Amino acid sequence: MKRTEFASWPCSIARSVDLLGDWWTPLVLREAFLGVRRFDDIQASLGIGRNVLTQRLKRLVDEGMLDRVRYQEKPDRFEYVLTEKGRDFYPVLAAMMAWGDRWLSGEEGPPIVLRHTTCGHDSTAKVVCSECGEAIEARNVRARLGPGYPADQAPPGRIRPPSAR
Amino acid sequence: MKRTEFASWPCSIARSVDLLGDWWTPLVLREAFLGVRRFDDIQASLGIGRNVLTQRLKRLVDEGMLDRVRYQEKPDRFEYVLTEKGRDFYPVLAAMMAWGDRWLSGEEGPPIVLRHTTCGHDSTAKVVCSECGEAIEARNVRARLGPGYPADQAPPGRIRPPSAR
Repeated sequence: MKRTEFASWPCSIARSVDLLGDWWTPLVLREAFLGVRRFDDIQASLGIGRNVLTQRLKRLVDEGMLDRVRYQEKPDRFEYVLTEKGRDFYPVLAAMMAWGDRWLSGEEGPPIVLRHTTCGHDSTAKVVCSECGEAIEARNVRARLGPGYPADQAPPGRIRPPSAR
Repeated sequence: MKRTEFASWPCSIARSVDLLGDWWTPLVLREAFLGVRRFDDIQASLGIGRNVLTQRLKRLVDEGMLDRVRYQEKPDRFEYVLTEKGRDFYPVLAAMMAWGDRWLSGEEGPPIVLRHTTCGHDSTAKVVCSECGEAIEARNVRARLGPGYPADQAPPGRIRPPSAR
C-alpha cells in the first residue's frame, strides 16, 4: 500500500509524521535515549523484526537524526548515536510520555519516572509558551498562516487566510 | 500484517503509539483542533480515504478522545468534538510542531505560526520540567522504573533495576 506523502504538506506535524515513518520509530528513538545503541540490543529490547529495524535505522541516519559510528574494526561494528536533531526530539517524546502517564496508566501509576537532574526532582514534562512560560493549551492558542505556507494552497481548517495576517 | 500490540507495554510512549494507531491519527486530531469537526470536512481537508477515516474516528471515540455529538436530526448528523483527554493531547502536537518548524522548515520559515493568547505573543512550544520550569532535555533527565512497571519484566535500556530505586 502506497503511503501518503506527508513530507510535502505545509504542516510541521505532517512533516514530522512523514520522517518518523511509523510508530516503531519513536520507540527506536526511545532506545537511543535509554543508551541502547547497537543493532542487536535494539532488536532484542523492542522485539522488532530485523528487516524493519534496518529500514528504520537507515531512514533515521539518512534524515540526520542518528549517526552510524564505527566502534570496532575487523570485523567492523557500528552503533547508532543521536545527532543534535535527534536529541532535540526528546522533548516531544517526553510530552507524549506525560500524556500517556496521565491518561493511559492504571491505578498502579506510571511505568517509568523521570528525574530532572537540573533541579533534582521527579518531573513531568510540561509544554509552555517560549515567550511567557505559561502553559500551551488548545484553548489559549490561535494558529495562522506562517511565512512558509504556499500562497497557492487553501488554508487548513479554520485558519485565517493570508489577507487577514 | 498483524500490528505489534504496544498497548500492553509498560511504556507510556508505546501505549500512546498504540492508541494513535497510525500517523493519520495525529492529523485527524490536528483537524479537530483547527475546528474541523464533520466527517466530510475532515475527509476533504486531509484527502484521507473514507474507510480509513471511519476507522480512525471510531478508535478515537472508543478511546475517549473524541465525542460523537449529534448536531442535526432527520437526517441525523454528527460531529466529532474533543474530550478533555483529546484536548490534553494538544501540547504533544505543539511540541512536535515546534520540532518540525526547527528542523524541517526550509528557508521560507514555518508554514503555521501560533499566537499564545495568554500573553499575546507569537509562540513556540517549549517542554519544561513541571517542578522547576527549566527545559527538559535528554541530557538532564534520568529515567528509572516507576510504580507501574511490572516486577517480572526486565527494565528497558539502561534503566536501573528495581533494587536500585
